[in-house]
Amino acid sequence: MTFEYRTTRRIQFAETDMAGIVHFSNYFRYMEEAEHQFFRSLGFSGHTRIDGQTVGWPRVRVECSYKAPLSFDEEVKIHLLVRKKTKKTLTYDIDFFKADGSPVARGRVTAICVAIDPVTKKLSAISIPACIAEKIQQAPEERLT
Amino acid sequence: MTFEYRTTRRIQFAETDMAGIVHFSNYFRYMEEAEHQFFRSLGFSGHTRIDGQTVGWPRVRVECSYKAPLSFDEEVKIHLLVRKKTKKTLTYDIDFFKADGSPVARGRVTAICVAIDPVTKKLSAISIPACIAEKIQQAPEERLT
Amino acid sequence: MTFEYRTTRRIQFAETDMAGIVHFSNYFRYMEEAEHQFFRSLGFSGHTRIDGQTVGWPRVRVECSYKAPLSFDEEVKIHLLVRKKTKKTLTYDIDFFKADGSPVARGRVTAICVAIDPVTKKLSAISIPACIAEKIQQAPEERLT
Amino acid sequence: MTFEYRTTRRIQFAETDMAGIVHFSNYFRYMEEAEHQFFRSLGFSGHTRIDGQTVGWPRVRVECSYKAPLSFDEEVKIHLLVRKKTKKTLTYDIDFFKADGSPVARGRVTAICVAIDPVTKKLSAISIPACIAEKIQQAPEERLT
Repeated sequence: MTFEYRTTRRIQFAETDMAGIVHFSNYFRYMEEAEHQFFRSLGFSGHTRIDGQTVGWPRVRVECSYKAPLSFDEEVKIHLLVRKKTKKTLTYDIDFFKADGSPVARGRVTAICVAIDPVTKKLSAISIPACIAEKIQQAPEERLT
Repeated sequence: MTFEYRTTRRIQFAETDMAGIVHFSNYFRYMEEAEHQFFRSLGFSGHTRIDGQTVGWPRVRVECSYKAPLSFDEEVKIHLLVRKKTKKTLTYDIDFFKADGSPVARGRVTAICVAIDPVTKKLSAISIPACIAEKIQQAPEERLT
Repeated sequence: MTFEYRTTRRIQFAETDMAGIVHFSNYFRYMEEAEHQFFRSLGFSGHTRIDGQTVGWPRVRVECSYKAPLSFDEEVKIHLLVRKKTKKTLTYDIDFFKADGSPVARGRVTAICVAIDPVTKKLSAISIPACIAEKIQQAPEERLT
Repeated sequence: MTFEYRTTRRIQFAETDMAGIVHFSNYFRYMEEAEHQFFRSLGFSGHTRIDGQTVGWPRVRVECSYKAPLSFDEEVKIHLLVRKKTKKTLTYDIDFFKADGSPVARGRVTAICVAIDPVTKKLSAISIPACIAEKIQQAPEERLT
């Protein structure tokens, strides 16, 4: 059982905008990449076949607060913490830091586990499959801020 | 003085993901596009030179709640409302609806007015230039939900 | 039967990069958007169900030559011409122009018609369905440059 | 002096489209990322200040041929080769392979060295700065295919 994951991410040129900094929408891609690395580190995938179903994790709610901009070629530290786990959802706090440890941004993401109909693409909320649920737990209260 | 703007947006193929729906990060691009259309409708731009300064609007905080997915080729209605106006910031509520009027998502964005140093790319918060501030007002209390 | 389509596209902020111009990869998104508008103008879609199959158009080969940069808020004219039509493929020439008619870029795209297995995502080349093939023709020789 | 660079890239969820595979436009981002890693490996950057000028590398011409699709979570091998070096330009061949070595795609990119005016964003072609030119050479004839 685990509740956190740390990674780093190099900022790419195409992720910047004409203000010279990373476009704010890309932080949500970074968050999802960290979430999927977390999943891979536990031996599963963020979008895969489980028990004959295509299982995915669409977002229910996301947010991000920006404290300092990121620049091309910079390496950002990303820290993901499982804030909340329910029968069907996972909520993550994701913190971004500069190489010197100063804060860049903080995001929060709630994802819901769904089965995706392969033809109609219709999404139906399902309980988190046991093989996933048994490996992820909520962070202890004292780790949340 | 105005406090709202309505537009529509056709969903593009590259905006979908393998779950068959619009990737959640793209809603933030749609929000910014609506904001910039709102600006253009008032005669200015979301990133431009004013009084010898490069003026931009980086985000301080953004969020989005997702109620129903969007599909390729679908036309989504977007409604932007100025929730709050301060000396240096604008906060928008942005609602997304299907063609039949059913809700898709609701976002909120707080942007801060900055001068951007053209060489160092350093951002400095500034008061919203008068030419912009005089054309935008907060929505009346009864319009906010 | 038709062989060309014209449209315009406003440049969005998120499509620029820190050089202050549209990132070159976005031209390929603009090309695909024009192609899909062309399809819609003929009454079909670039990714849809036909006769019980999911039909799509992955790219076989693409290219683009860049002559002048595009900037935020600029409106670019896009002209799509069907250069070649075979049993299973369509090749387009796509020209980009500034508002004053000066050239911006020229792209070429070859797309192949495929059936997509909804579960395995395996792609199988198929003949262009008659309902599509009967509405699109190659541009006459004298229109090609 | 070097003329090649090898890297790998994990496919991210947001890079897929509703056909279930990587959207073709993203290969151009992968190519640019490889090019910038190549630059970093030599001690410089793809967009930086040199001798008081902002130096960048806009694309003159790009192309890509697609042989097999890429899927979410897959790791693609990328091999960059300097095909041609002129006074002001660099042309790369970039090959993509599956983990098993089977071909995925081949791209070619010609980039031109420019000075970017920080205020007007005007681009002026310049000779490749000596500090860069002295570290990069064309691949020998027998390595080109």
